[in-house]
Amino acid sequence: MVDVSAKPLSTRTAVASGRIALQKQTADLICKNKIAKGNVVATARIAGIHAAKQTAHLIPLCHTIPLSDVKVDIEVFDNGAEVRCVARTIAQTGVEMEALTGVAVALLTIYDMCKAVDNEMEISEVRLVTKEKRAVAAVYSSRRNSAKADDRRSRKKGRS
Amino acid sequence: MVDVSAKPLSTRTAVASGRIALQKQTADLICKNKIAKGNVVATARIAGIHAAKQTAHLIPLCHTIPLSDVKVDIEVFDNGAEVRCVARTIAQTGVEMEALTGVAVALLTIYDMCKAVDNEMEISEVRLVTKEKRAVAAVYSSRRNSAKADDRRSRKKGRS
Amino acid sequence: MVDVSAKPLSTRTAVASGRIALQKQTADLICKNKIAKGNVVATARIAGIHAAKQTAHLIPLCHTIPLSDVKVDIEVFDNGAEVRCVARTIAQTGVEMEALTGVAVALLTIYDMCKAVDNEMEISEVRLVTKEKRAVAAVYSSRRNSAKADDRRSRKKGRS
Amino acid sequence: MVDVSAKPLSTRTAVASGRIALQKQTADLICKNKIAKGNVVATARIAGIHAAKQTAHLIPLCHTIPLSDVKVDIEVFDNGAEVRCVARTIAQTGVEMEALTGVAVALLTIYDMCKAVDNEMEISEVRLVTKEKRAVAAVYSSRRNSAKADDRRSRKKGRS
Amino acid sequence: MVDVSAKPLSTRTAVASGRIALQKQTADLICKNKIAKGNVVATARIAGIHAAKQTAHLIPLCHTIPLSDVKVDIEVFDNGAEVRCVARTIAQTGVEMEALTGVAVALLTIYDMCKAVDNEMEISEVRLVTKEKRAVAAVYSSRRNSAKADDRRSRKKGRS
Amino acid sequence: MVDVSAKPLSTRTAVASGRIALQKQTADLICKNKIAKGNVVATARIAGIHAAKQTAHLIPLCHTIPLSDVKVDIEVFDNGAEVRCVARTIAQTGVEMEALTGVAVALLTIYDMCKAVDNEMEISEVRLVTKEKRAVAAVYSSRRNSAKADDRRSRKKGRS
Repeated sequence: MVDVSAKPLSTRTAVASGRIALQKQTADLICKNKIAKGNVVATARIAGIHAAKQTAHLIPLCHTIPLSDVKVDIEVFDNGAEVRCVARTIAQTGVEMEALTGVAVALLTIYDMCKAVDNEMEISEVRLVTKEKRAVAAVYSSRRNSAKADDRRSRKKGRS
Repeated sequence: MVDVSAKPLSTRTAVASGRIALQKQTADLICKNKIAKGNVVATARIAGIHAAKQTAHLIPLCHTIPLSDVKVDIEVFDNGAEVRCVARTIAQTGVEMEALTGVAVALLTIYDMCKAVDNEMEISEVRLVTKEKRAVAAVYSSRRNSAKADDRRSRKKGRS
Repeated sequence: MVDVSAKPLSTRTAVASGRIALQKQTADLICKNKIAKGNVVATARIAGIHAAKQTAHLIPLCHTIPLSDVKVDIEVFDNGAEVRCVARTIAQTGVEMEALTGVAVALLTIYDMCKAVDNEMEISEVRLVTKEKRAVAAVYSSRRNSAKADDRRSRKKGRS
Repeated sequence: MVDVSAKPLSTRTAVASGRIALQKQTADLICKNKIAKGNVVATARIAGIHAAKQTAHLIPLCHTIPLSDVKVDIEVFDNGAEVRCVARTIAQTGVEMEALTGVAVALLTIYDMCKAVDNEMEISEVRLVTKEKRAVAAVYSSRRNSAKADDRRSRKKGRS
Repeated sequence: MVDVSAKPLSTRTAVASGRIALQKQTADLICKNKIAKGNVVATARIAGIHAAKQTAHLIPLCHTIPLSDVKVDIEVFDNGAEVRCVARTIAQTGVEMEALTGVAVALLTIYDMCKAVDNEMEISEVRLVTKEKRAVAAVYSSRRNSAKADDRRSRKKGRS
Repeated sequence: MVDVSAKPLSTRTAVASGRIALQKQTADLICKNKIAKGNVVATARIAGIHAAKQTAHLIPLCHTIPLSDVKVDIEVFDNGAEVRCVARTIAQTGVEMEALTGVAVALLTIYDMCKAVDNEMEISEVRLVTKEKRAVAAVYSSRRNSAKADDRRSRKKGRS
């Protein structure tokens, strides 16, 4: 692993996305919520969030990072579905692997739920969309003696 | 998930409790440490602590929180047992789910260990008892230039 | 742990259920799919299934059992919700803990998703509803040299 | 989940593959074992095998299957790397998700190890290559009183 | 991984053991159940059993094996403690790694619980004591049409 | 668990080591990378790092600590191999258990990979080498070379 103990804490956000090719008929079944295994979009969303939280146990050299937020959005098109995952943390290292893992596992979950009706699925275009690092809000590291009003002020400056 | 990245760090404590109904004979066997599967109270306590630490991997939308403390206490009565779990963290979000998960899994462990001798067990009254949020002690976020003595002082102020 | 190595394989099914008390308003929000954290029923269902598969890693003295089936059903009432979990395996030991764990974690997930709008929730009546053990169908262990037709025949006899 | 308890045991094999696009320079560094994080091929192979074994904990509706074999092979080309995963089991349901999960996590591991030197990586063509189901060898379920010679004979018939 | 799909099912048992050196005073505190962190022997026993069940997720090339039994025994001496773990399965491959992992994690747990009072602990002599492979009882694989009486007969032959 | 919520954050480093006795021939096979199961050193290194990150899920009363760094080094000698693990964190409690767990699991992995060719292996001398606690570097909140006073300044500016 890379030693990150000397790095400053930052608010890190990463967005990743990916696609799965689906037959038109499969996409229709998903949209009509008629896939026998259950609600594909809701299940894949939960699986992606869960996997993002498990990243450090899947990718050997990833750091264990407490995630402040994970969002997984899934859009179904005529010929496929697109998954987008946003991961955010306040940590000493970034969260692109968390976002990518969320995407990959959400896509695998769609695959699993549709494999009884579609044998031509393929996962592709799994990539990082953006990543961002911002100085952590004063609020977080926080000079404690300064009171609430102060916090609110520094938050405005530090995070906007 | 709820994005907690802009929330201040707080010391959060949650207490949850729950009950399992037991036949008098089962309660006796537990108290005399005569359940064949082993020491029920010690095992359930460990299982509850372990589960509290696993909360984010069980409850899909929970944040991964590094717990500062988990305590599980188990009291056995004539007609049942009561489990109480205290979870504490310094984090941007609360720990009620950790406390409740600790309670639920400790109760399930009692169930598992006694099911060979009692087929009327039932888990109930699993609920949050209290939760509390306090400004995090100066100590933690710490103004580094202030030396040890200073830390000790602020700790007295910040946490008492 | 109990040594089960000398027990015959059986088809084992267990059904467990449990309740969570909800305010009427919370139950309404769930039914209208308006809880901010997402689809409560779909999420709790997935969490329960996932937890049932994790049972041996949560309950210290449970055997690791490959589950043939897990179903979680959730019904929302005016004053609460009821979760029902069916677990099935072909194994040397039963699956009541898997069914109960599925119920408990699905209920905790409902709690987590609704805790922003309801502070009076309570989990109760978590219990085993039924359990059943049947001789394993010939199909499964199967005398291999007897061909397909034979299998089909024995299946008819063995499982009907 | 799909109830598989009435299905016969079969020897199931699935092969999946996938690609990651790499810059030529990155591919060179991998081949010369000069990526700072360590041996990319060995690490990704281990990560893929580990993930295949975790499939049921990542993909919500997958059955927990004891895998008889997992192999992950990685080939590095000028402009990318290809991962191929073979998963095998003797079970009542197939292992395509295990093979696909092995591929996806091995690819994510390559991504993680190379992200310091390559910001144009993209994962694609993750798909099932073949899957196969064969009557389980007599050897496995085995009429015990028939001796070794017998086993060997039936194995020849059943598995060749 | 080694492909075990063509191997016959056997009843496999492995016994492993290991030691931890303790100061006399530490051993006394354990025996009197006065270690501040709790009951050392009960906790280490549970941790060892839990770890044995997790073996395939810790040791990369181990197969996922459903264990029929795990026992962890701990004996405390004047200058140390000895852990002994028995693991049993009916599977196509052995369980020595499960027994060894159970021993290692039980010893680490003793270390963890005593480290506040003893800074000279050392783990040693972690080794396999015995392993055994027996033809699996007819009962298990079982010719189904032959009825109970038949099963009982073949069990006598197959397991005695 | 020990309540660490009132402790200051420190940079904690722990180094642990351990040995496995190997036959000369086994050591040779490892060095020549001819062990059938694969690259022993690379695999054991990854397993050790992975296990260190899992420590809190293995050792019941360990806190969940986000590790800043884990390094596992393995040296092979004529009659054995030595594993050394460095774990580092910025946390309220130490990481000796993480370092020891990394060592133990790396050693078990060597055992697993060599057990087909060596039946006299034994793990020993698993112990803490050093541990260190330093006031958390200004760095953590800020820039390294800039001293204390500077720290205060950079914090005021927003952390750049």
